[in-house]
Amino acid sequence: SFALGRHITIEYYDCASNVLLDKDGVESILLKAARESGATIISSSFHQFEPQGVSGVVIIAESHFTVHAWPEHNYAAVDIFTCADNIDLDTAIHSIEAQLSSQRVFISSDQNRGILQPGFGGCTPNSDEK
Amino acid sequence: SFALGRHITIEYYDCASNVLLDKDGVESILLKAARESGATIISSSFHQFEPQGVSGVVIIAESHFTVHAWPEHNYAAVDIFTCADNIDLDTAIHSIEAQLSSQRVFISSDQNRGILQPGFGGCTPNSDEK
Repeated sequence: SFALGRHITIEYYDCASNVLLDKDGVESILLKAARESGATIISSSFHQFEPQGVSGVVIIAESHFTVHAWPEHNYAAVDIFTCADNIDLDTAIHSIEAQLSSQRVFISSDQNRGILQPGFGGCTPNSDEK
Repeated sequence: SFALGRHITIEYYDCASNVLLDKDGVESILLKAARESGATIISSSFHQFEPQGVSGVVIIAESHFTVHAWPEHNYAAVDIFTCADNIDLDTAIHSIEAQLSSQRVFISSDQNRGILQPGFGGCTPNSDEK
């Protein structure tokens, strides 16, 4: 069988809360991680909540990065959906870790999405980007 | 312990491929599902791929809905991240199922995100929307 995509969720605890307070900062962190991973950025959309908190998504040619940040808990939830072998997930995960100054990081799930039977073909960076 | 959010991933196989071909149609499907679930829509961003395929995200006050659609495989990957008890996930899941005419749907993961120790408080729709 063949999977169209891979979807991982990452927990970033004990982050620097001042970083998580700033929408533009969180957006630049995700964009930098996406670039460093080799992703092709298509668009990004981030929202600041009151009294604090940031939600955002970066749509990439190979799927997406999302983040939800709770500064009051020094916590950010990230997920990365990728449909291409050229994305370096380790680089993305560690880039975000360093930029958030997170002291406790773990991958809480790592799953294949869109599992097809043999012979269906699938997504490659050059023929069918998602 | 207390979780800040709940994150589910849903696989929609055997969808009507003509529905998945249309960016505006896929966007309206996700927006309708979000509204019907009780979510507060903040923004949406959708992208059409060539030769086919749609990626998109709806940011809601309570976190997000995302979709990646492969019309050539009659498949759509959806995830819903919610940080509020007032979101009716069953309604959202079934709304998307009906609108995509999916003949094979399942929840491939359902996890708590941002697990805190007792006494930390957390996210409620009225005090700390994400």
